[in-house]
Amino acid sequence: MFSDRFDQLVQALRILPSVGPKSAQRMALHLIMKNREGANALSVALSEATSYIHQCQICNSLTEDEVCEICLSTERDSALLCVVESPADVLAIEHSGSFRGKYHVLGGHLSPLDGVGPEEIGIPYLVQRLTDQQIKEVILATNATVEGQATAHYLVEVTKHLPLQMTRIAQGVPQGGELEYVDSHTLSQAVHNRLTMK
Amino acid sequence: MFSDRFDQLVQALRILPSVGPKSAQRMALHLIMKNREGANALSVALSEATSYIHQCQICNSLTEDEVCEICLSTERDSALLCVVESPADVLAIEHSGSFRGKYHVLGGHLSPLDGVGPEEIGIPYLVQRLTDQQIKEVILATNATVEGQATAHYLVEVTKHLPLQMTRIAQGVPQGGELEYVDSHTLSQAVHNRLTMK
Ligand SMILES: [Zn+2]
Ligand SMILES: [Zn+2]
Repeated sequence: MFSDRFDQLVQALRILPSVGPKSAQRMALHLIMKNREGANALSVALSEATSYIHQCQICNSLTEDEVCEICLSTERDSALLCVVESPADVLAIEHSGSFRGKYHVLGGHLSPLDGVGPEEIGIPYLVQRLTDQQIKEVILATNATVEGQATAHYLVEVTKHLPLQMTRIAQGVPQGGELEYVDSHTLSQAVHNRLTMK
Repeated sequence: MFSDRFDQLVQALRILPSVGPKSAQRMALHLIMKNREGANALSVALSEATSYIHQCQICNSLTEDEVCEICLSTERDSALLCVVESPADVLAIEHSGSFRGKYHVLGGHLSPLDGVGPEEIGIPYLVQRLTDQQIKEVILATNATVEGQATAHYLVEVTKHLPLQMTRIAQGVPQGGELEYVDSHTLSQAVHNRLTMK
């Protein structure tokens, strides 16, 4: 189009979720014509984010330090652990204000057909965490999808020998719904009405 | 949320057109969790684009050189000049493959209420260009909006003394458009500008 670097910018913008060729071109023109300052700020923010943000060594959520603020907090109940699939789910639950324990991020769900077994989502590490730390209750907050349910059931099976209560966030999360997109009230209700699984 | 740099990235992504807080958060998580390489490539592409892409000294379109490829081309008709509002319009017309002359990008349209007069969109420079260069026909391809029309009419007025032909791109029902869904103004224009077929 105008130049190689313009084409490269359009191409680079296409990595953003749900940005097709038309939107990418519109974004590139908008940045170059109307907001170069914003484009430079975005460039810096991207490079800093990829350099400094990584997984928490304890819960696998995101942080710039070794251990995230939630794991470090002494005001949160360390005996209560909420297991989620992704950092986006941590954000959603935090936003609902319904939970004051700690988190464990699996980084996915069991999906044997895609080669994702217990090892791939760090279940051995979670079981070790549940064994070593003084956790009394685990809230299973994996997605209400087939894979999320299967993952929750697998976790119940594999921790049967441990002296802890396991609950599953309640109905209220719509069937097939992904936590990230559920409204805070529904999510808050779901945490409140969690059901004992074991 | 997770960290200051995460929040800064979400904030920086919001400068993109039609990206709200929810999408920005989703984009940031996607980049950090699933495509750091892409995020770094985007960071570089943004910084290179803002450093190297600027306006063509002749036509005001975008280029990395002093003068753009279209202005430099000896295979395009220099006697035919298409006046558009923005570089996006150059892309659209080039993509249509319907034009083999040169361009002039105004960088906007007349909008007296917003303080955009002839000077602000470089009309004196365009008139000088039309006077100095051997241009025989000017195609006015400003948008079919109130402001685009006003700008086209103003250009006709201000170049009355010059010995050149001025044309305006046709308005009518778009290709594949169903009359039922075409607005009445467009339809009225289409009827008024009807072409003899036989
Ligand atoms: Zn943590
Ligand atoms: Zn040019």
